Amino acid sequence: MTLNVYLSGEIHTDWRDEITAACADLDVTFAAPVTDHAASDDCAVAIMGAEPDKFWHDHKGAKLNAIRTRRGIDQADIVVVRFGDKYKQWNAAFDAGMAAALGKSLIVMHGPDHQHALKEVDAAALAVTETPEQVAQILTYVLTGTLPS
Amino acid sequence: MTLNVYLSGEIHTDWRDEITAACADLDVTFAAPVTDHAASDDCAVAIMGAEPDKFWHDHKGAKLNAIRTRRGIDQADIVVVRFGDKYKQWNAAFDAGMAAALGKSLIVMHGPDHQHALKEVDAAALAVTETPEQVAQILTYVLTGTLPS
Amino acid sequence: MTLNVYLSGEIHTDWRDEITAACADLDVTFAAPVTDHAASDDCAVAIMGAEPDKFWHDHKGAKLNAIRTRRGIDQADIVVVRFGDKYKQWNAAFDAGMAAALGKSLIVMHGPDHQHALKEVDAAALAVTETPEQVAQILTYVLTGTLPS
Amino acid sequence: MTLNVYLSGEIHTDWRDEITAACADLDVTFAAPVTDHAASDDCAVAIMGAEPDKFWHDHKGAKLNAIRTRRGIDQADIVVVRFGDKYKQWNAAFDAGMAAALGKSLIVMHGPDHQHALKEVDAAALAVTETPEQVAQILTYVLTGTLPS
Amino acid sequence: MTLNVYLSGEIHTDWRDEITAACADLDVTFAAPVTDHAASDDCAVAIMGAEPDKFWHDHKGAKLNAIRTRRGIDQADIVVVRFGDKYKQWNAAFDAGMAAALGKSLIVMHGPDHQHALKEVDAAALAVTETPEQVAQILTYVLTGTLPS
Amino acid sequence: MTLNVYLSGEIHTDWRDEITAACADLDVTFAAPVTDHAASDDCAVAIMGAEPDKFWHDHKGAKLNAIRTRRGIDQADIVVVRFGDKYKQWNAAFDAGMAAALGKSLIVMHGPDHQHALKEVDAAALAVTETPEQVAQILTYVLTGTLPS
Amino acid sequence: MTLNVYLSGEIHTDWRDEITAACADLDVTFAAPVTDHAASDDCAVAIMGAEPDKFWHDHKGAKLNAIRTRRGIDQADIVVVRFGDKYKQWNAAFDAGMAAALGKSLIVMHGPDHQHALKEVDAAALAVTETPEQVAQILTYVLTGTLPS
Amino acid sequence: MTLNVYLSGEIHTDWRDEITAACADLDVTFAAPVTDHAASDDCAVAIMGAEPDKFWHDHKGAKLNAIRTRRGIDQADIVVVRFGDKYKQWNAAFDAGMAAALGKSLIVMHGPDHQHALKEVDAAALAVTETPEQVAQILTYVLTGTLPS
Repeated sequence: MTLNVYLSGEIHTDWRDEITAACADLDVTFAAPVTDHAASDDCAVAIMGAEPDKFWHDHKGAKLNAIRTRRGIDQADIVVVRFGDKYKQWNAAFDAGMAAALGKSLIVMHGPDHQHALKEVDAAALAVTETPEQVAQILTYVLTGTLPS
Repeated sequence: MTLNVYLSGEIHTDWRDEITAACADLDVTFAAPVTDHAASDDCAVAIMGAEPDKFWHDHKGAKLNAIRTRRGIDQADIVVVRFGDKYKQWNAAFDAGMAAALGKSLIVMHGPDHQHALKEVDAAALAVTETPEQVAQILTYVLTGTLPS
Repeated sequence: MTLNVYLSGEIHTDWRDEITAACADLDVTFAAPVTDHAASDDCAVAIMGAEPDKFWHDHKGAKLNAIRTRRGIDQADIVVVRFGDKYKQWNAAFDAGMAAALGKSLIVMHGPDHQHALKEVDAAALAVTETPEQVAQILTYVLTGTLPS
Repeated sequence: MTLNVYLSGEIHTDWRDEITAACADLDVTFAAPVTDHAASDDCAVAIMGAEPDKFWHDHKGAKLNAIRTRRGIDQADIVVVRFGDKYKQWNAAFDAGMAAALGKSLIVMHGPDHQHALKEVDAAALAVTETPEQVAQILTYVLTGTLPS
Repeated sequence: MTLNVYLSGEIHTDWRDEITAACADLDVTFAAPVTDHAASDDCAVAIMGAEPDKFWHDHKGAKLNAIRTRRGIDQADIVVVRFGDKYKQWNAAFDAGMAAALGKSLIVMHGPDHQHALKEVDAAALAVTETPEQVAQILTYVLTGTLPS
Repeated sequence: MTLNVYLSGEIHTDWRDEITAACADLDVTFAAPVTDHAASDDCAVAIMGAEPDKFWHDHKGAKLNAIRTRRGIDQADIVVVRFGDKYKQWNAAFDAGMAAALGKSLIVMHGPDHQHALKEVDAAALAVTETPEQVAQILTYVLTGTLPS
Repeated sequence: MTLNVYLSGEIHTDWRDEITAACADLDVTFAAPVTDHAASDDCAVAIMGAEPDKFWHDHKGAKLNAIRTRRGIDQADIVVVRFGDKYKQWNAAFDAGMAAALGKSLIVMHGPDHQHALKEVDAAALAVTETPEQVAQILTYVLTGTLPS
Repeated sequence: MTLNVYLSGEIHTDWRDEITAACADLDVTFAAPVTDHAASDDCAVAIMGAEPDKFWHDHKGAKLNAIRTRRGIDQADIVVVRFGDKYKQWNAAFDAGMAAALGKSLIVMHGPDHQHALKEVDAAALAVTETPEQVAQILTYVLTGTLPS
């Protein structure tokens, strides 16, 4: 059966492309949030009308994006959450919490600087990685039993 | 029936005490993580033995604390998550994600500076507040139907 | 064990009091939404601050009331939903849908004029009644096996 | 993966056709209740025999239609519920309540006149719209990340 | 904790009393359907009005009784289902199916004559008994670890 | 989407073939228990070895058949349960109870003689029928909205 | 709220008593399987009649004990599973698998000799311990936040 | 529909190949853990970096393998667990416990020597077998209703 993977978190580097390219020969489908930052921020007001109050501007947008995000997590066998070097990234941790509560296999990706701050998230994960290459190797192993040579 | 409330998140101010004191006359029980920072960090190695590697030191501790945290969330009718001014607080967002996925009523508390960064968490909440007093007023209203005069 | 009953729907007559009084000798607890119409409409802005836009004024209020409503439905063995003669009462039908999806025993109360319009709601119910007295007789029968003499 | 959308509610205008046509190029399947009003009202007695009592005539029909309705909601990723200008439409609100309780992404469609009466339903939705075009734009965004130009 | 036991099935002998008396010293609560046959058959029409059609007379009654039955099964740790010597007793087998699907511990009680006909029900049970005394001994063992001397 | 239907109950007439033939043009898959009575009774001992005690002979067989039965019910959108004129058919009522507890749409088929004895099963059903033709008409209506002309 | 703990596994040493004694001042209830080995092996035949075939003797007993075991696990917040030095103890690992699948907090106790063989069980646990004292310290910390001095 | 079977347990004989070959003509898919013992033990350190402490070496590996194992069990209609003659095989019993708690149909395979030690696992199974041929015959019967001639 096809392995469904949701790639959550940081949207400013091309880590999703690296994993996707490295898994081109596997029976995997990848889903992700909308990674166009401007579209993601303004989607709701663009479709349903402007909001003068920034809170409700953001609120409508976050709810609309949640339609895609929750479907991605619900349909996933594995949820990969990457924490980048910048920003608060609370939505990434929120997705990780949802994935854990729904019993999804969670893979976390982050650099060593964030180790202590992410200990609760890492503790809920089945693998803690640093690079897209490691995630691709894990997906390869899970599907084929083959380790990197 | 008693209202069960879990108070998640920031542990460096006395917001939990403020809410608890303000709800002294209500039929509410409050649960919370261990808020003694040092105990929380070192609980596992203190009981089950030292780990030379900081990652596993933290890992054991985060898992042990998860016994308490997950019970608190599971038993709660309402999960209140406070984001303070400092630190990454990814565990707070992670708890919020768990609470949302489990269908708990979520109340978020944070200052206006964090509004944009927390928009996904706020979008999953049934109330977004700024002060312990507001949370106490909400709990009072939910239980008694009475608004602040 | 105590029977938990949630009394949803119409808030302009004293039907809840009639049922409660008629069941005074039974081991039943009743829960209900906030029936003070003004408090229910304005609860959120009273606590968390005014909203100039009526949509968001109502939105905040409906979410805050949902904390109480969903807890009431979740904890109920039986959900009673009354449709009065006036207003759209979509929240009553919404509560009935939630109760049905959650597997709660649903009792509907309405006059004969609404029979055709409520056929989908009635079809999901275990009893369709017209008066508070009938609901009280049902609760009495469910708990004690005794029919009205 | 194909996006499954259930189109619930008002059956007297062609809003379903508008959405379907506007999404012709997307990987979406649409399901809906039987929109032939006469067939929907009389289906059960036509197949299983007449009922002299109107209540049971309607009851049998509502149950038979529930086979289709509940399957549509159960299989949906997104449930769209439209409230038209006329009639009580309690079945639409009932469907919205079921969708919310089952954790489906809920999109509500209605005109501004119904805003206050539908506030509890809107509060459970991830998007509140007024037109079929907006729903089609939302489905397009959810699947492709593309906003209307 | 108190052990909750639902006693389903045959209502023409005093087997429930025998079990209850034999377990008088245990921390057990027993629930059961209404065992007054006439009340059980006519409960709905007595409260909600007569039905000229026998099918609907029975239908209303069966639904009203289901409020009590399903609560009894939902709250039970153990569901005991007794099949007597007479009648079809399909409601007993129906209750057993519900109990099995809900993951309740199922104890079946019947004479050897019914062994082949009840093999599917027995196969879902954790104990197959013939007498109230055996059921009481099982409940005693489950709670105290003590076997009959 | 394909409609999955499980045909439970009586195995001595060709009612399953009638339904299947009448639905040949629909997007339906049918599943059923093993209807070869001898194979069904002796399957377990034929594969896993004889049992001198009839109870265990039947027990092993009923469990083996449960692998097929429970899969059929779990995967079904609709469970049709037919009660014939003869035998106890407790397994049919047991399947109906499982289907009801799992939230499956239940269609019951039986003659008028069994009306009173099956009232609890009928009360859990969304349609009560007498003939395979009626079931086929229901499946046609559910999938296409078309009524018999 | 009272913490419910199920103590599964090895029954030949007094580890349960040690934990219970060390937690005498805490708000904890402990449940456990029947630890009288002979009673546990023969319970079913003592109550429901002898079985000449050892497989069915054991089968009946294991099922009867499952009534107690599954209730204990279902009601537990925490499941502690101890693996002793002797025997296969597959029932202990089976209980651990059930606890993990049900989302219970799992604490494993075993000596260092079993580390490699138990790695899959340990990987599902929130704490891996060696002594009853450590388990008691964990329960104390979870309830009170206090570490051993 | 394709029957999904997960083959858990002993990895030192070719029992999986025997079953797969014997079912070549059936609509079955088989999943299994990684059966390359060395790869299974070292997968995590090969991908994510060495661990000097054997406990964490094993821990990381067991978690990584759990991604595959839990997906296999979650997607299975039937879980077959084989206990071989050697080793503790606690992971096999753990998988059986998970399968039982998740409501999967469980088939156990082991020799007569292990009968008493596996009685709790056998009691949760729908079939207890000794050979791959018997398992293949069961899968054939479940799918086709055909018994070995």
